[in-house]
Amino acid sequence: MPTSKVFLVGAGPGDPELLTLKAVKALRSADVVLHDDLVSEEILALIPPQAKRIAVGKRCGMKSTPQEDINRLLVEYGLMGLQVVRLKGGDPFIFGRGGEELEALRLAGIEADVVPGITAALGAAAVTQIPLTHRELSSTLILVTGSSRNAGHIANWPDALPSNATIVVYMPGHNLAELQQRLLASGVSAETPCAIVSGATGESEQVHVTTIQQLQGAPRLAAPRLLIVGEVVRFAEPRRLQEQFSNFSLPTEYVEASPNTGETE
Amino acid sequence: MPTSKVFLVGAGPGDPELLTLKAVKALRSADVVLHDDLVSEEILALIPPQAKRIAVGKRCGMKSTPQEDINRLLVEYGLMGLQVVRLKGGDPFIFGRGGEELEALRLAGIEADVVPGITAALGAAAVTQIPLTHRELSSTLILVTGSSRNAGHIANWPDALPSNATIVVYMPGHNLAELQQRLLASGVSAETPCAIVSGATGESEQVHVTTIQQLQGAPRLAAPRLLIVGEVVRFAEPRRLQEQFSNFSLPTEYVEASPNTGETE
Repeated sequence: MPTSKVFLVGAGPGDPELLTLKAVKALRSADVVLHDDLVSEEILALIPPQAKRIAVGKRCGMKSTPQEDINRLLVEYGLMGLQVVRLKGGDPFIFGRGGEELEALRLAGIEADVVPGITAALGAAAVTQIPLTHRELSSTLILVTGSSRNAGHIANWPDALPSNATIVVYMPGHNLAELQQRLLASGVSAETPCAIVSGATGESEQVHVTTIQQLQGAPRLAAPRLLIVGEVVRFAEPRRLQEQFSNFSLPTEYVEASPNTGETE
Repeated sequence: MPTSKVFLVGAGPGDPELLTLKAVKALRSADVVLHDDLVSEEILALIPPQAKRIAVGKRCGMKSTPQEDINRLLVEYGLMGLQVVRLKGGDPFIFGRGGEELEALRLAGIEADVVPGITAALGAAAVTQIPLTHRELSSTLILVTGSSRNAGHIANWPDALPSNATIVVYMPGHNLAELQQRLLASGVSAETPCAIVSGATGESEQVHVTTIQQLQGAPRLAAPRLLIVGEVVRFAEPRRLQEQFSNFSLPTEYVEASPNTGETE
């Protein structure tokens, strides 16, 4: 039996420069690449021309490959002794079903390596310049997903969210009213600032900064999207805050320490 | 006044190949690099020989540069119109004080760019092959820190941790008995598996898999360390589980679906 190895590789949030060196190496020596729809053309261009490229992406409302079929393809190609790369948006182990793919490979006796990627929350934080943790304001980061196995229903959230946490909702969906209600019910106050980030680090990136109170009226930015919730959103890059966010200021104790910052001009 | 730009760059968890292409680019064109102690020699070797290298690292129990001095240095070099890189372990915005450095730069009118990095939790998950989220077991990822402004005291954690979450404790400290008590008090059950990961993705990487019940007796692995807590730890790479973890099995419903997996040989 030929030696088989499958690499589960994180492609990062969008910007091809946010690939890791290890991801580039895996792609350049691949015989077969099974990739998500969300992975950009610039990244796919790193794949050798003679390698087989298979799009297995899932995207809301579009034709997609069921997870069982992806698992089966990974095993089939893995058993051929080829170098197989499963290229996934973000990080394979953050809302990426990397665990399920790994499981299928183990059952088939195929060795796997996991190459981590910049998950969307880190990419979105970098471009908006929102620190996800902050000694004064937020000592906990909570990642949840708005989608669930029961489509349209926001399930499995913690009952109560701590007030000194930053919450990032992956795939928040289009029902912003429901999302707002869910956050309020979890104890997040209506005045808490939040940022909707669409296509973070990619060419079509868009950011809308608002509050939980006003979330319902936010524009419907294109997927992929995420929502960053917490006092740290007040530190968003000043141009992100401009116009979108009147009457917006830093917490009093922070303003005293740093008088020029975080306020719109 | 010369044009100034400072890059806050995440160096990732340890393995130089986990640098992003963007981080490599920033380092290669740097005039000055202020770096953490934890950044490896292989990564520092990317800095041009004529560039100034300043170690400003903080490491438990060793001489370190106070945060105010780091901020002051960033501003001083930034105002000289040089390309300045602040190279930080992991990601600049996850328990990294990137927000405070960004703040100091804004006050001084210096433009900053943030380059995200693979945060330690993602690096540790990849090497141990523990999926941080899982459709069946964990739909929430919570990152907390064991250290706090009041040294030795575990502060600012959520009061209650949801049972279907994965919790990653950064800088858990050496007081494993206190950490165990804190986790139990937050509602984590004693049987919950956990993994201590030391030097994730680096050359001296070590992993110890145990349960919250037995956490107290775990070996004192070297810093930097983190603790992954949750049912997903049952999916750790089989060789990580061997010997360390007798009587260890997957949840029943999962065993039925995948009979050969997650059990020690």
